[in-house]
Order: sequence, then C-alpha cells, then structure tokens
Amino acid sequence: MSSTAPRTLWIDAQGRLLTRDQTLLPFEDVLLELGGEEDCARAIRTMQVRGAPLIGAVAAYGLAFALRTDPTDAGLARARDDLLATRPTAVNLRWALDRVSARVAALPAAARAQAAWSEAAAICDDDAACNRSIGLHGAALLAPLRRAGAALQVLTHCNAGRIATVAHGTALAAVYALAEAGVPVHVWVDETRPRNQGASLTAWELGDRGIQHTVISDNAAGLLMRQGRVDAVIVGCDRVAANGDVANKVGTYLKALAAADNAIPFHVACPISSIDPGTADGEAIEIEARDPREVTHIRGRGPQGGMVEVQLTPDGSPAFNPAFDVTPARLVASLITEHGPTDASPEGVRAALGRSAAEGARPAGASPSQEAR
Amino acid sequence: MSSTAPRTLWIDAQGRLLTRDQTLLPFEDVLLELGGEEDCARAIRTMQVRGAPLIGAVAAYGLAFALRTDPTDAGLARARDDLLATRPTAVNLRWALDRVSARVAALPAAARAQAAWSEAAAICDDDAACNRSIGLHGAALLAPLRRAGAALQVLTHCNAGRIATVAHGTALAAVYALAEAGVPVHVWVDETRPRNQGASLTAWELGDRGIQHTVISDNAAGLLMRQGRVDAVIVGCDRVAANGDVANKVGTYLKALAAADNAIPFHVACPISSIDPGTADGEAIEIEARDPREVTHIRGRGPQGGMVEVQLTPDGSPAFNPAFDVTPARLVASLITEHGPTDASPEGVRAALGRSAAEGARPAGASPSQEAR
Repeated sequence: MSSTAPRTLWIDAQGRLLTRDQTLLPFEDVLLELGGEEDCARAIRTMQVRGAPLIGAVAAYGLAFALRTDPTDAGLARARDDLLATRPTAVNLRWALDRVSARVAALPAAARAQAAWSEAAAICDDDAACNRSIGLHGAALLAPLRRAGAALQVLTHCNAGRIATVAHGTALAAVYALAEAGVPVHVWVDETRPRNQGASLTAWELGDRGIQHTVISDNAAGLLMRQGRVDAVIVGCDRVAANGDVANKVGTYLKALAAADNAIPFHVACPISSIDPGTADGEAIEIEARDPREVTHIRGRGPQGGMVEVQLTPDGSPAFNPAFDVTPARLVASLITEHGPTDASPEGVRAALGRSAAEGARPAGASPSQEAR
Repeated sequence: MSSTAPRTLWIDAQGRLLTRDQTLLPFEDVLLELGGEEDCARAIRTMQVRGAPLIGAVAAYGLAFALRTDPTDAGLARARDDLLATRPTAVNLRWALDRVSARVAALPAAARAQAAWSEAAAICDDDAACNRSIGLHGAALLAPLRRAGAALQVLTHCNAGRIATVAHGTALAAVYALAEAGVPVHVWVDETRPRNQGASLTAWELGDRGIQHTVISDNAAGLLMRQGRVDAVIVGCDRVAANGDVANKVGTYLKALAAADNAIPFHVACPISSIDPGTADGEAIEIEARDPREVTHIRGRGPQGGMVEVQLTPDGSPAFNPAFDVTPARLVASLITEHGPTDASPEGVRAALGRSAAEGARPAGASPSQEAR
C-alpha cells in the first residue's frame, strides 16, 4: 500500500485515528488503528510508533481517549501516569501529556474529553506546521546548491523524516519541499548503524514518496564528499546546546567533519523546541549508552520472509553502543528552525529563541527525546 | 580450538600445510589442510583464505604442489594460469606466482618442485619478518602514548591482522608486539561495514589471543575520540601513493578526520610493497565499487546456529558500495614500514623507498590487492 495519507498520524473519514505499524517497516506497510488509550500506550511501548514528536502526539490522543471513560481528576492523573510510563524518559511524551492536562484541568469533567481531543489535534497541527516551515526554509537554502543539469545531491544521516513526526519530518521536510517545488533531488542515505534507521526508515519513506535515493554504508559518506558527489548535508537533531553544539544520532559528527573538509554545507534541521538554553555546550550533554546487542546482532528479513536476528560478532567480544554524538557548532553551517535559519553560535541561538518568543513558540520542553528514536 | 600456531599458514610436524577456514570465522575455527594444488586454488577462490599476503603465500604453495605432478614448462604455465584465475585482480597473487616461477624457470624439471616449495616458504618467512618489523616499529611509536595507570587505547578499522597475512598482520602487528612486551593495551574495533571485517575477523583474532577489545559501530569512533578515549589510531593500507595519500578500506578517511580534529596520531602500517610510486596521489587511485548486496544484505549466525543472510533495506531502494576511500597524506602521522616510520609526504615516501632499496626490499608489485580483503 502506498502512503497517500499526508500525515503519519491522521483521522480518516470514519473518524478513526490511524498510524502505521513501524515495527513492520520497511518490509510491510500496515495501518494501525488506535481505538483507545490502551492502543496508544501499546503502540508507544512496543515502538509501533517512534520518533519524539509522533510519540507525543499519540500520547496526547491516548489521554483524550482515557477522559472519555473517566474524566475525573483521578482518571486524568491515572491515565497520564500510565501513558508516561510507556517510555519514561521521552521528553516529548511528558510535554504532550502536560499540555493536554493543562488544557483540561480547569474544565468541568463533561467537557474534558472533547477539549483533550482538540488539544491533541492542535499538537499534531503544530508539529506539522513547524516541520513544514523548516522544510521550506531548508529547501530555500539547498536549492541554489544544485548544479545545472544534475539533481541536487543531499546526504542525510538517521531518520529525521515524516514517520518520526506527525508530518513532513524535519531534515527530510526540506527534501520533500524541494521535490514538491519540482527541484530534482537525490538523497544519499547513510544506513546509520547500529539501528539502521537510514537503511530501513529513511529509505522506505523516500521510496514511498518516489524520491530518488541510494543507501550507503556510513563509512562511504566521506568518499562521496571527496568525490564531489554531495552538494549539501542535512540532518536532524536531538538537542542543541546554547552555544550551537548539536547532539544527534551517533556518526553525525563524522559526517560533519567530512563536510567541512570538503567545503560542503552541513545544515541541522532544528525545531526551536530542540534548543536547550539550559545546556551550555555539547560537553554538558550526557550520551546515552544503549544495549550492546544492537551492535553485536542485527535484524532483517530472512530467507523465508520473516524477520530474523543474526549475530555479527564472535562470542566473548564485548561491544559498546553510544547512541549519540556531539557535533561542534563550528562545523554547522546553519540551524534551520521553523522561523528560518540561524547561526550555530551563542548569538544565533539567542536570536532564534528571541524571535520564537516574539512570534509565539511552542511550549518549552518539547525537545525530541534521546530515547525516542 | 585456540590458535596456538604462530602463523596463519604453517606446516605441522607431519609435514601437512595447514591454514584456517576463514569462511567459518568468527563462529567456528576450523583447520583446513591444503593437500595439493586444487586445495590451494579452492581455498583462494572460495575465500577460505583472504588477505593479500596470505593469498599470495597459498598460491605459491599451490604452484609448488603442481610441480610435484608435472614439473615441465607446460605444467608450470598451466598451473600458474589456473592459480592466477582464482582471484584475477589480486596483485599479490600474481606477484607470488611470478616469484616462484622465476625461481624455478632455469632449473631442471626434477629440481623444480623442491625449489618451488622452498621459495613458497621464503615468501612466508619474508611476510612474517616484514610484518614483525612493522609491529615492533609501531609498538615503539604507540607505547609512549599510554597514560599512566591505564591501558593504551588503540582504535583500528577493518582487519589488517594476522589472519590477512602469514603472521602478525600489519596494523595489528603493533598491538601484538605491545601485548608481548607487557604493555596493557585495549583495542576499539570498528565493525567496518559493509563486510564487517572488524566485527568478525579483528574481534576474533584479538579475542583468540586474549587481547582486550571492544567492538563499536563505525559511527561511534568520532565520539570516542572526542571523549578522549582513544590514544592512537592504526590502520592498514591497500595502496599508498607517491605523495603519501593512503587508499584503505572505506571509512578510513572519516576516522582520520576525527583523529586530526582531536589531535590523536593516525598511523598507517605500510609494507614497502604497498607503496606505489607510479601513482602520483590519491586522486589517481580508482575506487572499486562492489556488489550493492553487501550493503542491502548481511550475513550472521542465525537463531539456529547456522549462517543466515538477512535483508536490511526495503525492496526497490538501490545501494552503492565503494570498497575503499582515500585518506589525504596531511591527516597521516606516519607510514610505518618494515624499515621504520616515515612521513606521509613525497619526501618521506621517497626516503622509505630509497632505504628499502638499500636494505633489500621485497620485490615490487607485492601491494595488497583491492580485491583481496
């Protein structure tokens, strides 16, 4: 089934809340109906939905569902706690639940479910609008880099795409905006070991939209840049520090170094909500170490068509699996926020936050969680 | 079975020529007896042996076996052609066959088999001695970098180890020499996608020798360097140009950039035979593109214990698979040859070649082939 629905989380003509089961991607694209709080909780817990913005939106609908059954203060508190426990350290999850809770707290019980539903819808609309804006700003930056007669060659790492968000994605929003504007574009997709979000999710969602792309091993990105086969790099971010340092999926730093060494602009799609002014610089960002099994084993489609996990390393060889790295601000050409590009510098970050406050930013604390990818 | 034999290709007390079946590593360590020409040819063709120096040595013995059966000029030519066809573009293969052929050409037929066997043994001895020397020079460079109270932290990429050679390896020879000298050493092993020579072969051979090591995704190397957890990087090479540019397994360049960005010495273990004075610089080195299936699929040990290949990318997503990249000389701290370290510069390379000629180098053309890994 091709994805014609414009969003990753949407309500169909029959009023059903739908998403895709991402545990089956990229090999099967199966719709998943979220019919109640428990469906929403299970989808988050089992990673049928992943990506910080999408998790937040699903949780918001989960709370709205819960209030249909029990709109009391006790019901609200219980549902909030249960949903929060599905991925306890996901920042967006907490932010979305708090936003819905705040919206309904002062309302009479009978009005809460409807108001919560509307707030969940608003969270979705806000995410889509933010990402769309990032995409348009990104496209404006990238389009002039295209060489005459050739497709624009964009390299990306991990999956900062529409299936991590309610719609459009962040880094890939720029690619979608370019394609929509008729700019020929081809994406080099880092496979993004160890979890291979590039090889599976980014490749799937680009292919699903008919956008030219080629999967490469993470190791190949430097060679392609040296060979002049990359016009720009654009990635997402997990957190941006006050000085412009960028925490993102492990390996981002290596691609930024290669871009700098070859005078290729390295852009970071950065919703204002991902900026953490309380973090002075990248050194202050704690790097999550995940299960070494993500390095020693890998899952894929086996010869019989089902998913199979295989072991890659010898018995007895330990592995270490840091999930993120920090790209120093000096390597970043720009942070592309929903209000436009800004310098990856203390001044640039301050200006972006100030502009956002003036224009009405999304509430603070919405930064995509390091747990959520 | 633990590997107590000091070489990867050796003759046991019963006079049998033995190696290990590398297609079964890292999960099974099975000895392979090479009892005749056809065994040698099959081992090379099916990659039971791999690594340029090892392939050359096995081919030399294959020719010696053939001459036992048919020591005529026609027999020599036939066997040489058959062995050469096992991996046609492997430079070492041709070099070793030519060396044995030249040694026996002027001899009476009856003396050829014995002389060829001796020459094959000499090729093995030369490889072992060259690598041992590289290891000692490398160890001398690396040992002072160890911080008091800690193990020396070495990062390597791909497999430039003893199982790619007759003995010791090149980059890993330095690690073995350090361990032998009692220097505490720990190796960060890049998994080295797409063929995972690090995760499988380097991890196996270090574990087999009881050397502390940890496997990481290729993406993690930059973070570890930024965190101060790497004292030195040492890698092998496929070819070194006259200006000191280094062609090696894809991804080497990214690690060299990260090393430079963090003031960590980046050394290249470089047998004189790998220097190609006829190649002006890295731009002149053609990069082999291998089967995209190495990116889209991966093999590992399945749940039932057998080897299973799984698909990683969605149907319809193309992949590109360059096997090598070029690390510019400016990023290389030194080329460690069997005669000692030299600068990665036109002057350094010329000096190394001159010194080698004076001391009696191995014949030219022994450079590890880009096909051989």
